[in-house]
Amino acid sequence: MNSTALKDQIIFLSEIEKLKGVLRANRTVDGRYENSAEHSWHVALMALLLEEHANSAVDMLKVIKLLLIHDIVEIDAGDTWLYEENQDSKLDDETKAANRLFSLLPEKQKQEYLGLWNEFETRSTAESKFASVIDGIQPLLNHLVTGRVNDGVILAADVRKKKMYIKDLAPNLWHLVEEMIMESEAKGLYE
Amino acid sequence: MNSTALKDQIIFLSEIEKLKGVLRANRTVDGRYENSAEHSWHVALMALLLEEHANSAVDMLKVIKLLLIHDIVEIDAGDTWLYEENQDSKLDDETKAANRLFSLLPEKQKQEYLGLWNEFETRSTAESKFASVIDGIQPLLNHLVTGRVNDGVILAADVRKKKMYIKDLAPNLWHLVEEMIMESEAKGLYE
Repeated sequence: MNSTALKDQIIFLSEIEKLKGVLRANRTVDGRYENSAEHSWHVALMALLLEEHANSAVDMLKVIKLLLIHDIVEIDAGDTWLYEENQDSKLDDETKAANRLFSLLPEKQKQEYLGLWNEFETRSTAESKFASVIDGIQPLLNHLVTGRVNDGVILAADVRKKKMYIKDLAPNLWHLVEEMIMESEAKGLYE
Repeated sequence: MNSTALKDQIIFLSEIEKLKGVLRANRTVDGRYENSAEHSWHVALMALLLEEHANSAVDMLKVIKLLLIHDIVEIDAGDTWLYEENQDSKLDDETKAANRLFSLLPEKQKQEYLGLWNEFETRSTAESKFASVIDGIQPLLNHLVTGRVNDGVILAADVRKKKMYIKDLAPNLWHLVEEMIMESEAKGLYE
C-alpha cells in the first residue's frame, strides 16, 4: 500500500463532504433545495441507464468520472443557476477551485482529475458531450417530478434556448427534451 | 432510438428522485441527516480514488454501478442503521423493493441491475467485495469530518466488530479503519 497516497486521498475525500452542503436552485420531492452531491449521483446513474441513446460510442467509466466530479468546484465557487444573468466570474472562480481541490490528491490523480474537469467544461470529447447532455436533462426531469422550479416560474423560451445544445450533441434525446419542456409548460412551471 | 425503452428509463429515473429523501443515521457538515443519494455519490467517488488499495484487480465500472444502485431499495424499505439490533425484516423488505423498482426498467436492464443488487448484497465477486469495503469506510470518515454520529455516542467495540470484514476483504485498508476508529474514540464520538 502507498500510505502517503492514501493519506492525501482521505484528505480529499474528507474535503468533498462539503459538496452535500452546496445548494442548487432545484428542489427535492420533500421541498428543500437539492444539493450538488445528490445531483451528481442522479446524473451518474442517468448516464449509465441512457447510454444507448448517446450520439456515439462512449467510454462509460470516463462519463461517470466526469459526472461524479463535475460540480466539485462548487465547494469553493458555489452553484451558479443556469438562468442567472451574471455568470462573469464563474469560470475564473471554478478554475481556482479546481486547482485548490484537486491539488489535495496525489500528483497523478491530481493531473487526471484536473484533466477530466477541463474536459467536462470544454465538451471536447464524446464522453464530455454525453455527460453535458445528461447534466442538462436531469434538471428538466427534476422540475417535473418535484413540481417546482427554484422559487417561481421560468420562461419556456429560456429553457429551450439553454438546452438547445442537446439537439446537436444528442439528437436522439432532443425529442425527450422538447416533451419535458412542453409538459412543464402545461403544468405551469414554465411560462 | 428505442423510445419505449427511453420512456421506461425515464419513469425509473423519476422514481429514484425519492432516494434524496431517505435519511441515514449519519450527519452532514451542516448538521442535518445525510441522505442515501448523496452517500451513494460519496462512495462512488471514494471507490474511484482508492482503487489502488483494492485487494485484487477490479472492473471499476462495475464497482461504480454497484455503489450507485446499492441503496436504491431504501426508497421502499428505508435505511436500517448498522447499529440497530432488529434487522430481521431487512432482507425481505429490500428484496421486494428491488423487484418493484428495477422492474420499472426495460427487461434487459431490469435483469442487469437486479443481478448487480444481488451481487452487492452477497459480496460474491471482487467488485462487490471492494464496493462493500468502501461502503463500510465512508461512514467512519463521515463521523470524523462532521464530528457527529447520529444523536449520540456509539461503542468503539461495536464499530470494530461491524467493520471487521474489511480486514479480510481489503487488508490494505484495515490500518486506515483502525486509525479512524481510534481517532473517533479520541474525539469522544465512540466510547
